[in-house]
Amino acid sequence: MNFSNITVEKILTGFIKNEMNRIGINKAVIGLSGGIDSAVSAYLSVKALGNKNVKCLLMPYRTSSAESLTDAMKVVRDLNVEYRKIDITESVDSVVSAAEDKKISDVRKGNIMARIRMIMLYDESAKDNSLVIGTSNKTEILLGYSTIFGDSASAINPIGDLYKTQLISLAKHLGVPESIINKKPSADLWKGQTDEKELGFTYEKVDRYLQLKIEDRLNEEDLKKSGFDDVFMKRVNGLIIRSQFKRLPPLIAKIANRTVNIDFRYNRDWNT
Amino acid sequence: MNFSNITVEKILTGFIKNEMNRIGINKAVIGLSGGIDSAVSAYLSVKALGNKNVKCLLMPYRTSSAESLTDAMKVVRDLNVEYRKIDITESVDSVVSAAEDKKISDVRKGNIMARIRMIMLYDESAKDNSLVIGTSNKTEILLGYSTIFGDSASAINPIGDLYKTQLISLAKHLGVPESIINKKPSADLWKGQTDEKELGFTYEKVDRYLQLKIEDRLNEEDLKKSGFDDVFMKRVNGLIIRSQFKRLPPLIAKIANRTVNIDFRYNRDWNT
Repeated sequence: MNFSNITVEKILTGFIKNEMNRIGINKAVIGLSGGIDSAVSAYLSVKALGNKNVKCLLMPYRTSSAESLTDAMKVVRDLNVEYRKIDITESVDSVVSAAEDKKISDVRKGNIMARIRMIMLYDESAKDNSLVIGTSNKTEILLGYSTIFGDSASAINPIGDLYKTQLISLAKHLGVPESIINKKPSADLWKGQTDEKELGFTYEKVDRYLQLKIEDRLNEEDLKKSGFDDVFMKRVNGLIIRSQFKRLPPLIAKIANRTVNIDFRYNRDWNT
Repeated sequence: MNFSNITVEKILTGFIKNEMNRIGINKAVIGLSGGIDSAVSAYLSVKALGNKNVKCLLMPYRTSSAESLTDAMKVVRDLNVEYRKIDITESVDSVVSAAEDKKISDVRKGNIMARIRMIMLYDESAKDNSLVIGTSNKTEILLGYSTIFGDSASAINPIGDLYKTQLISLAKHLGVPESIINKKPSADLWKGQTDEKELGFTYEKVDRYLQLKIEDRLNEEDLKKSGFDDVFMKRVNGLIIRSQFKRLPPLIAKIANRTVNIDFRYNRDWNT
């Protein structure tokens, strides 16, 4: 929280440029939901790579709100980037109907939607030889408020170290349309869904807590003095612990001398 | 390569039991392709958890070989586990038809198939409160011969530290049906596809090389003395380097004090 938005913008556009250079790919593809996270990723990508090198996919489902699409189109027009609209209804419904139960839960269906979008994005990136840019913020990554192998899947993620509240501030600085900044955050996976309703606390509160606990390493006593109660802290800590698997690659059973993601991790490691 | 198959079996069934215990889930779901890798994962899982706690999904596509399905059914019957057959043709074709081009490449279509199977497995695991068991071996993980967020996706992977040739030996020990052990390895994503044809070398050769280079840390000179030529070594090394992204979570731009997967990695880390 100590950097100005100007500095954050410089660091994050530099990150995008450097990583793409290193990989040797200069085009990006981003799934635009109409929400603030993917909008910020798109603005940063265009600033880093130019509008000719960024493509956006708009992937509505039958029940997606019309407002989401309108807001995503505002970003497309403001940034003057190429875009494609792909209706994922048929693909999602086909997978849903393959599920055994007659009625699957909203959460399971939401996961299927997020993963079908991942498939569309990765296929588009294979077609264009482009890179999928991530759109997950730090708050949702820490809380596990995302679908593994779905919306959390990307090649590089410029906004994954920004808490939601920081992201809102950066969005204003970048000129993201007001309607996107001002609406209630929602994954729009079902009607009436909002993040804060589903999580049971506000981003303002949880970001303040995460900043103190994760970044500033306050202990429990000091966190209590800062105004957080046991129930809240237990709940948030539990979300972080239980979602650890979403932040790590699959766990491999160790048998050999050097095991992938245990003691064989980096290029520089196997070269020596 | 130093452990006997009896010891390997003991380590890997112990791994499955311990990890499932730790997570608090006692049921497993495995995608059975009819090939040796998923068969070995299934045999190990049944030995670890019992046949009542393992479910297998058979997920043929229109062009999948009939032999694949027959072989997968041999595993199901031999292990006496619950199974479901899900034809993925409609779901895959729906995604393919959403792709812009009239004709997509075999590789892109293969990736879509692998990812649709991932969605089916993860939805099944959500329904049953079970865990998706990985079926990727060490050779393919190192060479990047897999689909990211597709067949490489799993919660825990008991066979990810076993080279393909070790896996064949373990399969014999576990009693995997002969027809599965003896057929040419293939992802069966298109007609006539075999791993060794696509890779351009045999598993026997590349596993011998990987053992010497990765596990025994031989230098280039000694690898040459062992009979490997420059062209082969350059090709294999290139595959390992270029596929690193498949073995790691998305790269996050660092902004804060503690960044996910850079300096915030473990439960024990954030608790202090």
